[in-house]
Amino acid sequence: MYVIAVYDVRAERTGKLLKLCRRYLTWIQNSVFEGEISPVRLKELKIEAKKLMVDEDSLIIFSSREPRWLQKDVIGHERNSTDNFF
Amino acid sequence: MYVIAVYDVRAERTGKLLKLCRRYLTWIQNSVFEGEISPVRLKELKIEAKKLMVDEDSLIIFSSREPRWLQKDVIGHERNSTDNFF
Repeated sequence: MYVIAVYDVRAERTGKLLKLCRRYLTWIQNSVFEGEISPVRLKELKIEAKKLMVDEDSLIIFSSREPRWLQKDVIGHERNSTDNFF
Repeated sequence: MYVIAVYDVRAERTGKLLKLCRRYLTWIQNSVFEGEISPVRLKELKIEAKKLMVDEDSLIIFSSREPRWLQKDVIGHERNSTDNFF
Protein backbone atom coordinates (compact mmCIF):
# COMPACT_ATOMS: atom_id res chain seq x y z
CA MET A 1 0.00 0.00 0.00
CA TYR A 2 1.06 3.60 -0.51
CA VAL A 3 1.01 6.05 2.37
CA ILE A 4 1.45 9.73 3.14
CA ALA A 5 2.36 10.52 6.75
CA VAL A 6 2.29 13.98 8.30
CA TYR A 7 3.16 14.71 11.90
CA ASP A 8 2.75 17.79 14.07
CA VAL A 9 4.71 17.39 17.32
CA ARG A 10 6.53 19.67 19.75
CA ALA A 11 10.07 20.66 18.74
CA GLU A 12 11.69 18.42 21.35
CA ARG A 13 10.18 15.34 19.68
CA THR A 14 10.60 16.14 15.97
CA GLY A 15 14.08 14.60 15.80
CA LYS A 16 12.87 11.25 17.07
CA LEU A 17 9.78 11.18 14.82
CA LEU A 18 11.94 12.17 11.84
CA LYS A 19 14.38 9.34 12.55
CA LEU A 20 11.56 6.83 13.04
CA CYS A 21 9.60 7.78 9.92
CA ARG A 22 12.77 7.73 7.83
CA ARG A 23 13.20 4.06 8.66
CA TYR A 24 9.88 3.29 6.95
CA LEU A 25 9.16 6.06 4.44
CA THR A 26 10.76 8.76 2.30
CA TRP A 27 11.04 12.27 3.69
CA ILE A 28 9.61 14.73 1.11
CA GLN A 29 8.96 17.89 3.03
CA ASN A 30 8.97 19.34 6.55
CA SER A 31 7.17 16.67 8.68
CA VAL A 32 5.84 14.93 5.56
CA PHE A 33 6.73 11.42 4.36
CA GLU A 34 5.52 9.14 1.65
CA GLY A 35 6.21 5.68 0.32
CA GLU A 36 5.21 2.13 -0.32
CA ILE A 37 4.88 0.04 2.84
CA SER A 38 3.46 -3.32 3.85
CA PRO A 39 0.50 -3.47 6.27
CA VAL A 40 2.73 -5.18 8.83
CA ARG A 41 5.41 -2.47 8.67
CA LEU A 42 2.77 0.26 8.75
CA LYS A 43 1.38 -1.25 11.94
CA GLU A 44 4.92 -1.35 13.35
CA LEU A 45 5.47 2.32 12.46
CA LYS A 46 2.26 3.32 14.23
CA ILE A 47 3.18 1.37 17.38
CA GLU A 48 6.68 2.90 17.46
CA ALA A 49 5.30 6.39 16.83
CA LYS A 50 2.80 6.07 19.69
CA LYS A 51 5.70 5.26 22.04
CA LEU A 52 7.41 8.54 21.11
CA MET A 53 4.35 10.76 21.09
CA VAL A 54 2.44 12.51 23.88
CA ASP A 55 -1.25 13.42 23.92
CA GLU A 56 -0.95 16.80 22.23
CA ASP A 57 1.09 15.38 19.31
CA SER A 58 -0.54 14.40 16.03
CA LEU A 59 0.39 11.93 13.30
CA ILE A 60 -1.96 11.50 10.35
CA ILE A 61 -1.48 8.66 7.89
CA PHE A 62 -3.32 8.58 4.58
CA SER A 63 -3.10 5.21 2.86
CA SER A 64 -4.11 4.02 -0.55
CA ARG A 65 -4.11 0.37 -1.53
CA GLU A 66 -2.71 1.24 -4.93
CA PRO A 67 -0.05 3.91 -5.70
CA ARG A 68 -1.78 4.55 -9.03
CA TRP A 69 -4.87 5.80 -7.18
CA LEU A 70 -2.84 8.74 -5.98
CA GLN A 71 -1.52 11.54 -8.12
CA LYS A 72 1.22 13.80 -6.80
CA ASP A 73 1.73 17.37 -7.95
CA VAL A 74 4.62 19.49 -6.67
CA ILE A 75 4.40 23.27 -6.95
CA GLY A 76 7.60 25.16 -6.34
CA HIS A 77 10.66 23.49 -4.93
CA GLU A 78 10.68 19.68 -4.59
CA ARG A 79 12.61 19.08 -1.38
CA ASN A 80 13.16 15.36 -2.01
CA SER A 81 11.82 13.70 -5.11
CA THR A 82 10.74 10.11 -5.05
CA ASP A 83 11.14 9.61 -8.80
CA ASN A 84 10.04 6.04 -8.54
CA PHE A 85 6.64 7.31 -7.39
CA PHE A 86 4.89 6.16 -10.57
CA MET B 1 -11.69 14.41 -6.38
CA TYR B 2 -10.16 14.22 -2.93
CA VAL B 3 -6.91 16.00 -2.16
CA ILE B 4 -4.31 16.34 0.55
CA ALA B 5 -2.21 19.51 0.37
CA VAL B 6 0.97 20.14 2.36
CA TYR B 7 3.04 23.29 2.11
CA ASP B 8 6.48 24.20 3.40
CA VAL B 9 7.07 27.93 3.06
CA ARG B 10 9.03 30.59 4.92
CA ALA B 11 7.33 32.02 8.01
CA GLU B 12 6.52 35.34 6.32
CA ARG B 13 4.34 33.54 3.79
CA THR B 14 2.53 30.95 5.95
CA GLY B 15 -0.32 33.32 6.82
CA LYS B 16 -1.18 33.95 3.18
CA LEU B 17 -0.94 30.26 2.20
CA LEU B 18 -3.07 29.31 5.21
CA LYS B 19 -5.74 31.82 4.23
CA LEU B 20 -5.70 30.71 0.60
CA CYS B 21 -5.84 26.97 1.31
CA ARG B 22 -8.66 27.49 3.81
CA ARG B 23 -10.80 28.91 1.03
CA TYR B 24 -10.60 25.58 -0.82
CA LEU B 25 -9.86 22.85 1.73
CA THR B 26 -10.09 21.92 5.43
CA TRP B 27 -7.15 22.64 7.68
CA ILE B 28 -6.28 19.45 9.61
CA GLN B 29 -2.80 20.00 10.93
CA ASN B 30 0.13 22.41 10.75
CA SER B 31 0.49 23.21 7.00
CA VAL B 32 -1.75 20.28 6.04
CA PHE B 33 -5.17 20.47 4.36
CA GLU B 34 -7.58 17.97 2.93
CA GLY B 35 -10.93 17.94 1.23
CA GLU B 36 -13.11 17.28 -1.75
CA ILE B 37 -12.52 19.72 -4.61
CA SER B 38 -13.43 20.01 -8.28
CA PRO B 39 -10.66 19.90 -10.91
CA VAL B 40 -11.46 23.50 -11.84
CA ARG B 41 -11.15 24.76 -8.26
CA LEU B 42 -7.98 22.72 -7.74
CA LYS B 43 -6.46 24.38 -10.79
CA GLU B 44 -7.52 27.76 -9.38
CA LEU B 45 -5.91 26.95 -6.01
CA LYS B 46 -2.62 26.02 -7.71
CA ILE B 47 -2.57 29.25 -9.75
CA GLU B 48 -3.30 31.37 -6.67
CA ALA B 49 -0.67 29.51 -4.64
CA LYS B 50 1.99 30.07 -7.30
CA LYS B 51 1.34 33.81 -7.10
CA LEU B 52 2.07 33.77 -3.35
CA MET B 53 5.07 31.44 -3.43
CA VAL B 54 8.74 32.03 -4.20
CA ASP B 55 11.22 29.51 -5.62
CA GLU B 56 12.31 27.97 -2.33
CA ASP B 57 8.71 27.35 -1.19
CA SER B 58 7.05 23.97 -1.68
CA LEU B 59 3.41 22.90 -2.03
CA ILE B 60 2.65 19.23 -2.64
CA ILE B 61 -0.83 18.11 -3.60
CA PHE B 62 -1.83 14.46 -3.53
CA SER B 63 -5.11 13.81 -5.30
CA SER B 64 -7.31 10.79 -5.54
CA ARG B 65 -10.25 10.56 -7.91
CA GLU B 66 -12.30 8.82 -5.24
CA PRO B 67 -12.33 9.60 -1.49
CA ARG B 68 -12.93 5.89 -0.80
CA TRP B 69 -9.51 5.07 -2.28
CA LEU B 70 -7.93 6.90 0.63
CA GLN B 71 -7.98 5.77 4.23
CA LYS B 72 -7.14 8.23 6.98
CA ASP B 73 -5.71 7.20 10.34
CA VAL B 74 -5.06 9.74 13.09
CA ILE B 75 -2.64 8.86 15.88
CA GLY B 76 -2.67 11.14 18.89
CA HIS B 77 -4.51 14.42 18.87
CA GLU B 78 -6.82 15.22 15.93
CA ARG B 79 -6.37 18.94 15.45
CA ASN B 80 -9.43 19.38 13.19
CA SER B 81 -11.59 16.42 12.30
CA THR B 82 -13.36 16.24 9.00
CA ASP B 83 -16.02 13.78 10.20
CA ASN B 84 -17.68 13.80 6.83
CA PHE B 85 -14.48 12.27 5.41
CA PHE B 86 -16.18 8.94 4.56
